Amino acid sequence: MVQLPEASKKGRAGAMGARQIYEALKDQIVRGVYGSNGLLPSSRGLAAELSVSRTTVTAAYEQLAAEGFVDLRQGARPRAMPAALGQLSAKRFQRQHSSGHLSSYGERLKSIPPRPRSLPRSLITDFRYGDLAPSDFPVLAWKRAVVAVVTQRRDRLAYDDPRGSLRLRTALQGYLWRARTLRCNLDQIIVVNGSQQGLDLCARLLLEAGDRFVIENPCYAMARNIFSATGAKPISIAVDKDGMNTNLLTGGEARLAYVTPSHQFPLGGVMPIGRRHQLLAWARRANAYVIEDDYDSEYRYDISPVPPLHGLEDSGNVIYLGTVSKTLSPTLRIGYLVVPPQLQDVFATAKQLVDRHTPLSEQEALATMLESGIYESHVRKIRRRNNERRETLLNALHYKFGDGIDVVGADAGLHIVAWLRELPRSMTGELIEKALKIGIGVHSVMPLYDPAVSEGQPDYVGLVMGYAALDTRQIERGVHLLRQAVDQMRK
Amino acid sequence: MVQLPEASKKGRAGAMGARQIYEALKDQIVRGVYGSNGLLPSSRGLAAELSVSRTTVTAAYEQLAAEGFVDLRQGARPRAMPAALGQLSAKRFQRQHSSGHLSSYGERLKSIPPRPRSLPRSLITDFRYGDLAPSDFPVLAWKRAVVAVVTQRRDRLAYDDPRGSLRLRTALQGYLWRARTLRCNLDQIIVVNGSQQGLDLCARLLLEAGDRFVIENPCYAMARNIFSATGAKPISIAVDKDGMNTNLLTGGEARLAYVTPSHQFPLGGVMPIGRRHQLLAWARRANAYVIEDDYDSEYRYDISPVPPLHGLEDSGNVIYLGTVSKTLSPTLRIGYLVVPPQLQDVFATAKQLVDRHTPLSEQEALATMLESGIYESHVRKIRRRNNERRETLLNALHYKFGDGIDVVGADAGLHIVAWLRELPRSMTGELIEKALKIGIGVHSVMPLYDPAVSEGQPDYVGLVMGYAALDTRQIERGVHLLRQAVDQMRK
Repeated sequence: MVQLPEASKKGRAGAMGARQIYEALKDQIVRGVYGSNGLLPSSRGLAAELSVSRTTVTAAYEQLAAEGFVDLRQGARPRAMPAALGQLSAKRFQRQHSSGHLSSYGERLKSIPPRPRSLPRSLITDFRYGDLAPSDFPVLAWKRAVVAVVTQRRDRLAYDDPRGSLRLRTALQGYLWRARTLRCNLDQIIVVNGSQQGLDLCARLLLEAGDRFVIENPCYAMARNIFSATGAKPISIAVDKDGMNTNLLTGGEARLAYVTPSHQFPLGGVMPIGRRHQLLAWARRANAYVIEDDYDSEYRYDISPVPPLHGLEDSGNVIYLGTVSKTLSPTLRIGYLVVPPQLQDVFATAKQLVDRHTPLSEQEALATMLESGIYESHVRKIRRRNNERRETLLNALHYKFGDGIDVVGADAGLHIVAWLRELPRSMTGELIEKALKIGIGVHSVMPLYDPAVSEGQPDYVGLVMGYAALDTRQIERGVHLLRQAVDQMRK
Repeated sequence: MVQLPEASKKGRAGAMGARQIYEALKDQIVRGVYGSNGLLPSSRGLAAELSVSRTTVTAAYEQLAAEGFVDLRQGARPRAMPAALGQLSAKRFQRQHSSGHLSSYGERLKSIPPRPRSLPRSLITDFRYGDLAPSDFPVLAWKRAVVAVVTQRRDRLAYDDPRGSLRLRTALQGYLWRARTLRCNLDQIIVVNGSQQGLDLCARLLLEAGDRFVIENPCYAMARNIFSATGAKPISIAVDKDGMNTNLLTGGEARLAYVTPSHQFPLGGVMPIGRRHQLLAWARRANAYVIEDDYDSEYRYDISPVPPLHGLEDSGNVIYLGTVSKTLSPTLRIGYLVVPPQLQDVFATAKQLVDRHTPLSEQEALATMLESGIYESHVRKIRRRNNERRETLLNALHYKFGDGIDVVGADAGLHIVAWLRELPRSMTGELIEKALKIGIGVHSVMPLYDPAVSEGQPDYVGLVMGYAALDTRQIERGVHLLRQAVDQMRK
């Protein structure tokens, strides 16, 4: 972190006094080295880095705090004061940097909506979808599995198979067959860094500028972003209570169709068998691939499992996509593709070019949990927990809103969509603001609709409500406060 | 793994008898479910999966072995016999699958040389470059760090910053400054899945079909593949003992230049300061980016550290690329980009679209090791070990080959290039064959040269010899056997 000229010549900072550390830190803070949030190294960490005593570092920090450069709080990490935070740097950089060309892909990325900034942690209840409760994570089993991998003996540390570890693919092959009646060869399975990378590989290998792709409307916005980033144009197909309305599929210019048939995201419809066959027949005629995103099929409540498209007749163009982001953690970044045999080699080559392979220890740890059956008992356990959360949410909404609310997509998954009949769509932004003020995070369904398509969207406020990261008390409290926010607006 | 119709309806295999398991496995083997290598589940794993006793599974396997479907070896995993391995499947699939279109990127990938198949493990010595010795991995420290991450309390499990964990970027910022005199803002650092992903992000954001890129000749072949896969064309610049010959850089049509100035891969030259300035001046004139791949700068032996391009004046277009694949393990898949401020947002967006972020636990574990200083003491330790390996290799080569060999690039890194004066280049393939037969793996430098450029390559056999995965005994034995192989050919 801290370095002086002579130290830098040695390529290693020698022992320093408090004064030198103070000077160096001040210089860095003013130069804006500490980025937007101004977080500085902990005194412990810095002492270790510089091999000086912690008191030396503390002395330096206290001097900086006294002079108003640093904000010191007990237990928290030192922060540079916003005022002190380097105005210099940005300007200096802009001046000295000529900006080279971007590819058309790079130019298109500029137009993609900036990533949502995560909300303040201080909320009483945040209904943001996609997060999970740490208490649901199988800490002990995962720890044991990871330690086993780290301490395992190997001949040499070398790059692994780009398709993923043989052990994991073998375990997944069995799991997919048992849990999803999905049969495939080992070489059809490509382990990826979460379904995100699976979608990106599909986009790169199957789409290019000027192509068309079929996508649900509303849909998983990141999928639309990934496909659009290639320069391909969406054909948005309206969704009803049975998922994508396959009657609207016209003669096929499209290269691929992206669907979530087990539990449409966000509206939650389960695609009936008739539509599934209709979709596959269209794909065959159009000679297009169908990407089946099975992101949360582990969570079924009142309904019996629906086999994936992949299992059906005529499914030779289906690319199946699964993930553990909804059953273990989104931070693990593990997903898997099952691709048709005619694509297995080009996907393997692409995966190798893109990042060699997915990190081995997560793969092997997951394999251990699948082999031992722990993964499936874990899924059964958290399915029960999420069912409790779901029922708590449904009861609370019914109790607080009665007929004022339409809930859809509650038979499966980890979220619902709630349509608030009492509020026109135009009031969405205001409701979100009001809710935030009283400590709850609610999230509009609107960004998930294709902005280019005007019709098809209900006229009142629609919220995507995820519950997997919340306990029942938070859910009840959250609904209670949401009711309050709505009442305030109706005054 | 094994499933029967009614079981599949239940979505979960019930308890089965040995007979049923035998039937199901046989069916799968013939249908080719077990891929090219025919590896079947371990009896332990399968018993757990089916919740039956292990003896039941063993009985089924023994029946299959008796009938010649399976090869059972004590301690090893059961394998399907190649003969039994599904001839059906391939045909069946080809028939039923119409093959959709690939993007031009996908089409180009077909032309990229298939990934090298890793050599048999039975070799006495394999000089393959890129592998590390497991005995060099800091198992205890890493285990402690990972366990700390897994057992750490969090508010919720949610997607992290696409640029990488704040803790790791803060730790890297300090490390880069101390170890490489490289100063940057936190927001310029993008944590990626190994340098491979860093190069791929650069390729996607900076290159497109028809563009030109400058690259060393010979070079890291995967880099050339990644850039070529975009449809851009290489401008190969010859390398001498001082790295890329920057005098050959002509007026700039190129969008970027890819260089390894700290230790040219593979020939090992260290680019002197004069050439560095020449390169940066060219980049400014051409308005091109310079990608500085600092893949093994931790390993310097007889020479003093050379500061990276990134630190120099006029380096506003330099993209710095680092990795832990050479200091910890290539299987961790962690690297980092330091991009110019004008690129930091688009790189962050790209990283998020591509795979959200790099897995969190590896990031946090690495951060822990950097904060505590353990990482740097680890690097010092294995630098000493690799220096021993290096000297062993150099002495052995000198002793066995005397003036018959030219060794280059030995001042730094984890490999050397050995030119065997005694053998014409045309005998390379034959030498590799002979060496393999007597149990050593040697690897030609030829594939690293641009096939489109005929001149510049010496007329005799050149080998890239990595030593980081070998112990000194293996190195001496390996050189001894290499000598034998060469002698056989000179008879």
